[in-house]
Amino acid sequence: MVLASGGGTNLQAILDQLHGQGEVEVVGVGSDKPGAYALERAVAAKVPTAVFPRDEFDDREARDSAMADWIQSTGAELVALAGYMQLVSPLFVERFRGRIINVHPALLPSFPGLDAIGQALEHGVKVTGVTVHFVDEGTDTGPVIIQRAVEIPANWDRDELETAIHAVEHQIYPEAIGMIARGEVRIAEDEPRKVIVEQRFGK
Amino acid sequence: MVLASGGGTNLQAILDQLHGQGEVEVVGVGSDKPGAYALERAVAAKVPTAVFPRDEFDDREARDSAMADWIQSTGAELVALAGYMQLVSPLFVERFRGRIINVHPALLPSFPGLDAIGQALEHGVKVTGVTVHFVDEGTDTGPVIIQRAVEIPANWDRDELETAIHAVEHQIYPEAIGMIARGEVRIAEDEPRKVIVEQRFGK
Repeated sequence: MVLASGGGTNLQAILDQLHGQGEVEVVGVGSDKPGAYALERAVAAKVPTAVFPRDEFDDREARDSAMADWIQSTGAELVALAGYMQLVSPLFVERFRGRIINVHPALLPSFPGLDAIGQALEHGVKVTGVTVHFVDEGTDTGPVIIQRAVEIPANWDRDELETAIHAVEHQIYPEAIGMIARGEVRIAEDEPRKVIVEQRFGK
Repeated sequence: MVLASGGGTNLQAILDQLHGQGEVEVVGVGSDKPGAYALERAVAAKVPTAVFPRDEFDDREARDSAMADWIQSTGAELVALAGYMQLVSPLFVERFRGRIINVHPALLPSFPGLDAIGQALEHGVKVTGVTVHFVDEGTDTGPVIIQRAVEIPANWDRDELETAIHAVEHQIYPEAIGMIARGEVRIAEDEPRKVIVEQRFGK
């Protein structure tokens, strides 16, 4: 299950690299935005879609509850946020505890929240990167699954950095989902922040 | 000028890679700890030393003021903190504004303050690194000069990570000092957090 609000380039990477190739099936694409281009990508890949706009529900909890019911009905084992611009409510996190992941365009805990690339440029860092992490109740605070660094050369503008960051997202997000599908990823029993990755096959 | 409180391995890297080789001269080594091994390294390299223990002065400001006078008397153009475990006071920062640098064992702004390596392990990150930055009034908040990432393989213990981090420190701290000595480093005029590095010669 992939949730997306926007163009869906991470969804496309997942569809291209994983969907229907044996280990992973994308059983649905959900969105809060009826016009999200991600939904068109899903349709083109013959993946079921559903839309849960905030203004059609009394509150965020009601929306997330309906969305959770739909996700459960698809038999999804993992919920991958991919440019999903809504905070998920605590009840949603609780229902899929340890089975919701997100990709964030920074090396967390640096630059959580919105516009991480802009934050990194503003702060003047020379290295940033991408983090795939489990989602918990906080904003980009959950346990880290994979991180990859991206150096910022002196002469880069924002566009060049965005391109590089997105390329890394499109590489490591499918990689992380594949590892989870193969059962290679678990949270350490006595250290809830520590994710143990034991690669068995593949890359 | 190098200030150190401990074993002085970063001082040694600076002495070995830069001192007396044309571009950089270490004109003194100061410490807050009379027994710091860094002082012995300085003596062995025939570099003048001075010690400013906190308990020989009325307060931190008085200590830093005496230390600043001594530094100025040596003709030092740059003050490099190297395992110097005291916060420098605002008056010290003001006297050497833009001429004090520090090396920190994390990719700032992640994990500022004490035991950055322990913080990174506790947080469960998969990538950390080293930052060389200008010192301002905050704790590890000044503008970033160089950063380098260090991946944390799944099977590493703390010792292995420390060894890798320190190896990177011993590489990029002398590198940064060399770049500053050659005039390749400046803070952008309109963006006080942005450090522009224009390498002219060398590595």
